[in-house]
Amino acid sequence: MPKQVDHVGRRRLIAEAVCRLADERGLEGVTLRDVAACAQVSMGAVQRCFRNKEEMLLFALQYVSERIAQRVQARLVRSPAQSAGTALGHAANEISLLGEEHRAEARVWLAFVAQAAVSKTLAGVLRRNYAALQQAFTDLVSQADEAAGCAVPLDPQREARALLALADGLTTHVLIGHLTSQEAYTVLDTHLARLWDQVTPPPPHTGEDSAR
Amino acid sequence: MPKQVDHVGRRRLIAEAVCRLADERGLEGVTLRDVAACAQVSMGAVQRCFRNKEEMLLFALQYVSERIAQRVQARLVRSPAQSAGTALGHAANEISLLGEEHRAEARVWLAFVAQAAVSKTLAGVLRRNYAALQQAFTDLVSQADEAAGCAVPLDPQREARALLALADGLTTHVLIGHLTSQEAYTVLDTHLARLWDQVTPPPPHTGEDSAR
Repeated sequence: MPKQVDHVGRRRLIAEAVCRLADERGLEGVTLRDVAACAQVSMGAVQRCFRNKEEMLLFALQYVSERIAQRVQARLVRSPAQSAGTALGHAANEISLLGEEHRAEARVWLAFVAQAAVSKTLAGVLRRNYAALQQAFTDLVSQADEAAGCAVPLDPQREARALLALADGLTTHVLIGHLTSQEAYTVLDTHLARLWDQVTPPPPHTGEDSAR
Repeated sequence: MPKQVDHVGRRRLIAEAVCRLADERGLEGVTLRDVAACAQVSMGAVQRCFRNKEEMLLFALQYVSERIAQRVQARLVRSPAQSAGTALGHAANEISLLGEEHRAEARVWLAFVAQAAVSKTLAGVLRRNYAALQQAFTDLVSQADEAAGCAVPLDPQREARALLALADGLTTHVLIGHLTSQEAYTVLDTHLARLWDQVTPPPPHTGEDSAR
């Protein structure tokens, strides 16, 4: 009988090594060999899991995206009694990767986005992820808008686009050190609060920042 | 007498080659040799201009940043009679690199930002550029806010931060194909218009988009 290898586990191990390398030095010049060394597996083991670097990067991108999506979902489930506006605030804060403990994930995200701008395959995966996020945020805006009952309803799709773009822009500015996490959170919270004229209270940050 | 070489001109030529490569395939794995080939100069010529790859990337980043800053400035000068709100709209649209003809520049910007997230030297240059932009936008928001004369004045610094982050996030989303240019312009214009409750008319896009 051939030796049983836990392929799923090994692929995850390799994806985590890609993320560590992306965090430390970006995806610039990262080779299958570097990843094998970082994951402490043989070059052959990496090659049996992925045919080439692009296939490996694709898997790592999906791995990170799923982790973020699961976290957003968990955040929403944790407080089922919350209003749609509050849920939107929580989801936006979770997706924005502004906190210190998500800095590595944010670097990985940025490295992938930069690669996606010149790789059609990576761009395709990112686009599918963003389409799903866009739909989730559009639904949340729509529900919150209905609950707010304003005379002039918002355009949920446009607001969702703005929110995702603002979150990503802020993440980028924190990464390059233009803004502090706290400054970025304030911008995001103000944007959310203004959507329904302070109807939606921003999620609390004070004293909680070190844990995000 | 030693042969006179136009060093300034040659450095620019090389910076443009870096930008072409960044646009075609990102900065991933770009070598001094690739740049020499692309600029159609000898490897020695590149080495006489820049001691290493980082020095070359730094120069290219400054080169692109100055070009964008000059364009923003030119856009502001072109219509001196405009209100501060309109000037802000023009500057935000110019900085956001959303149009098809700025796609290459946007890719270069993103490649540099991704590198800056893991290079302290590049991050330092980007931070100085963003600080200058931040100041310019804060001043414009402040002037526009004064002119609008609202009961509750805006926080110009926070609004400038939001505007820059939104513009960069939208640029990223257009680059990966999540949004079309037109969708991104609509988000940006709506954000600007809302700042002073439609006091600031968004700059016109219809029929002009192909030229941006």
